[in-house]
Amino acid sequence: MPLLHHMQVSGNSYKVRLCARQVGFECALKDYPHDSGLTRTPEFLAKNPNGRVPLLEFEDGGCLAESDAILWYLAEETPLVPALAWDRAKCLEWMFFEQYSHEPYVAVTRNIMTYLPKEERAKRAHALPDLIARGNAALGVMETHLAKNEWFAGVRYSIADIALYAYTHVANEGGYDLTKHPAVSRWLKRVAEQPGHIPITESW
Amino acid sequence: MPLLHHMQVSGNSYKVRLCARQVGFECALKDYPHDSGLTRTPEFLAKNPNGRVPLLEFEDGGCLAESDAILWYLAEETPLVPALAWDRAKCLEWMFFEQYSHEPYVAVTRNIMTYLPKEERAKRAHALPDLIARGNAALGVMETHLAKNEWFAGVRYSIADIALYAYTHVANEGGYDLTKHPAVSRWLKRVAEQPGHIPITESW
Repeated sequence: MPLLHHMQVSGNSYKVRLCARQVGFECALKDYPHDSGLTRTPEFLAKNPNGRVPLLEFEDGGCLAESDAILWYLAEETPLVPALAWDRAKCLEWMFFEQYSHEPYVAVTRNIMTYLPKEERAKRAHALPDLIARGNAALGVMETHLAKNEWFAGVRYSIADIALYAYTHVANEGGYDLTKHPAVSRWLKRVAEQPGHIPITESW
Repeated sequence: MPLLHHMQVSGNSYKVRLCARQVGFECALKDYPHDSGLTRTPEFLAKNPNGRVPLLEFEDGGCLAESDAILWYLAEETPLVPALAWDRAKCLEWMFFEQYSHEPYVAVTRNIMTYLPKEERAKRAHALPDLIARGNAALGVMETHLAKNEWFAGVRYSIADIALYAYTHVANEGGYDLTKHPAVSRWLKRVAEQPGHIPITESW
């Protein structure tokens, strides 16, 4: 059975658990505690030289990194990847937006505010105003889209929604006020109502 | 004819020009001078609320942002996107790696060192050591892969190579020493020898 190397509280890891559940992909889980350093061991770096989870390891030794690439692999040929070429491109557009313009701000703010020890948090405090401004800008881009569209790519729920849901639904842990983004808030509710949805805390 | 909103010196824009040329996709070009602020006008934000180029605009008004999503759209169903599902996933893995672990360091260092006015550069100088360390780490991950593989995804040149080539081949403008990464240097040469290759400076 494939093994998903993951971190329970990480949105990037949660994306993969959620998608796996919704497409019926079975795998075992190996949890890496937050800030344990266990993704930087020689043994782990041999599997992913970039030293990050999630990492999906297959029985033949093949390893796939990058949460959104794993989503694509699990969901290609399922309804979670749009059938039309244009919608597939828009799906990837939002996934790259998520990794470049959303995660580095919304997720990093959450990490600093909720998961770093107090002393480390104090050292990063100077970075917070800029991170929060950029995180709110990303939420604003989502709000603009969702004010006119139900989903991010095409006419149905896709892996673009999974990718953006992962850190958006816990953005409050980074101090973001989602009530300022009503279309985003309604979309979060729609995502959570999809068949097979599991919460980030689900231990599998 | 589609219109590519782009910035000549930007690696993200260059990716799209290079791929378009190699797959035979014809489009007009509109150049946005560096730091002109022209991607933040209301007119541009109506096309891309995230305020960035490259942006590919079609005659029906449809707009596609995010360089790597545009690559996928242009190259899907061509030999530049691998035919095997596993290779497609690895192709996306490297493209997400590029946007998350490479571009924010290698490209940003280049921007600070080569394109910012002297006064702005001085303000960002404190950030350079960390950016350079992370950029070198990304080049190291590429070196590890290329020491054993000719290309990034599957057995031939793909959009993953285009995505990573764009900022790697000008990394020296950010102060990176590519002679420390011999497998990367050999791969850069292979990419530049592909049919239809154009340099970043080509004005089209």
